[in-house]
Amino acid sequence: MSFIPRNPDYARRVQDSFARQGAMRHIGAEIVHLAPGEVDLALAWRSELAQQHGYFHGGVVGMLADSAGGYAAFSLMPEDASVLTVEYKMNLLAPADGARLVARGRVLKPGRTLVVSRVDVAVLREGQEHFCATLLQTLMTLAGRSDGPQG
Amino acid sequence: MSFIPRNPDYARRVQDSFARQGAMRHIGAEIVHLAPGEVDLALAWRSELAQQHGYFHGGVVGMLADSAGGYAAFSLMPEDASVLTVEYKMNLLAPADGARLVARGRVLKPGRTLVVSRVDVAVLREGQEHFCATLLQTLMTLAGRSDGPQG
Amino acid sequence: MSFIPRNPDYARRVQDSFARQGAMRHIGAEIVHLAPGEVDLALAWRSELAQQHGYFHGGVVGMLADSAGGYAAFSLMPEDASVLTVEYKMNLLAPADGARLVARGRVLKPGRTLVVSRVDVAVLREGQEHFCATLLQTLMTLAGRSDGPQG
Amino acid sequence: MSFIPRNPDYARRVQDSFARQGAMRHIGAEIVHLAPGEVDLALAWRSELAQQHGYFHGGVVGMLADSAGGYAAFSLMPEDASVLTVEYKMNLLAPADGARLVARGRVLKPGRTLVVSRVDVAVLREGQEHFCATLLQTLMTLAGRSDGPQG
Repeated sequence: MSFIPRNPDYARRVQDSFARQGAMRHIGAEIVHLAPGEVDLALAWRSELAQQHGYFHGGVVGMLADSAGGYAAFSLMPEDASVLTVEYKMNLLAPADGARLVARGRVLKPGRTLVVSRVDVAVLREGQEHFCATLLQTLMTLAGRSDGPQG
Repeated sequence: MSFIPRNPDYARRVQDSFARQGAMRHIGAEIVHLAPGEVDLALAWRSELAQQHGYFHGGVVGMLADSAGGYAAFSLMPEDASVLTVEYKMNLLAPADGARLVARGRVLKPGRTLVVSRVDVAVLREGQEHFCATLLQTLMTLAGRSDGPQG
Repeated sequence: MSFIPRNPDYARRVQDSFARQGAMRHIGAEIVHLAPGEVDLALAWRSELAQQHGYFHGGVVGMLADSAGGYAAFSLMPEDASVLTVEYKMNLLAPADGARLVARGRVLKPGRTLVVSRVDVAVLREGQEHFCATLLQTLMTLAGRSDGPQG
Repeated sequence: MSFIPRNPDYARRVQDSFARQGAMRHIGAEIVHLAPGEVDLALAWRSELAQQHGYFHGGVVGMLADSAGGYAAFSLMPEDASVLTVEYKMNLLAPADGARLVARGRVLKPGRTLVVSRVDVAVLREGQEHFCATLLQTLMTLAGRSDGPQG
């Protein structure tokens, strides 16, 4: 699917909002792809992000995926709006065992009030990507509140 | 619902596993209620756990709720088993605006292979509890791996 | 939780809308409890509603539960609104093996635009209720369209 | 993704099981694509399948999608196994307004015990496909029960 952003300056707006997100900075996430309705976030492994077996913690996978889908939705919104996660479902498909995590958020349906995003998460291990989680998410446009996703 | 734990020493086992969970310790979570099929986790507010408006971050709400439901399931498991989150769905009902977060995990269905838990999350604000999120979760018993929930 | 309906005539409105729902009539569902934010629907077993082992078909369980949650939400809406299912997640907990199915829809959060409902489904077998499914559902208020849930 | 079926005779097995499914026959569904890990089901509009505005009923959309994902999973299973829906989440993206419904089930992760499928549903209206729903689903392999999806 390809979308026309309502705000021509969407890229700067996503980047500014992401830079202000303390939680994303705290875990070391960065934007690695950005297009209308599409945001990929990546994260390098650190021991603070791991669970007991040394894999990325499920909560970290969820946080990164939720943000990727939220920013994908935000990229299509008008200039004076912000975005709120209403709900999501995540399936953990395999251990997030690797050096780097990538969450690819794609808008499936850009409604005026509600936006539905899908996020696929892969982990990079020995030079190969492994599909480790998927998320299906409903977001709401909050008009008149110029801001990024509400973490 | 009331359940009979397969492991009479379930309480010590939940507490030991929880104490080893780096991620839970890292965010400052503690067990405040523990019974067969029931685990409540609580967390005091700190700026590192907040999003841009100062509320608890949605990712933190998800991580606490996922653990509460996972330990509720773990409390009913045999001694040689561990538990893995298969998937969950979370609805964010209101901003997690307050001084303390409590996630109450309850087993709905304790199957041999799969366990279904429900978790209600409240935030304490000015002495009152406000219902802020709910989670419906599927977990899997991993036989022969004596360990707590896989974060 | 107890709610104050915005429409004092909510009961008649739910019953009228339900009576017009072809699909609910087609499967033989009836309202057995109705209060603000609460609707229970029941259904007697018939061979056309069964899957290959003679249990209620999962699709029928989903349809009944979706309607119960939708009407619970609808009971709290203003007179000129209708309700639309945005999404739901259903966990099938046990075979729906019995003579009668009851779906109990309860509103968890009555927002102005979005409403979240929870539905627990039981099957009656040899005089005893067995918990067989649970559903967590997001609904949207459609202002200016006086109608029941959109099937 | 491309998968190698454990049962070389998978196609006949899926078709035989589908032919026995009373509920699928009752609503008029047919298999229109079948490959390892992939099943598409289609359904022509009939008034009995409609809700009050004449669109396909949400319960019918859910039932068709659940079956498409279930048979996609079943196509990868060993000969002596059957498949059970553990849970699913469905997002309704647009009214299912059209003459024909197609549900495309694809396996995302074929585990030994659990299989995760994704199903996209389109409705055909005036010669064009419109994306109207998506489903994310967890299924369980039941060993030693040679049978199709449990409806």
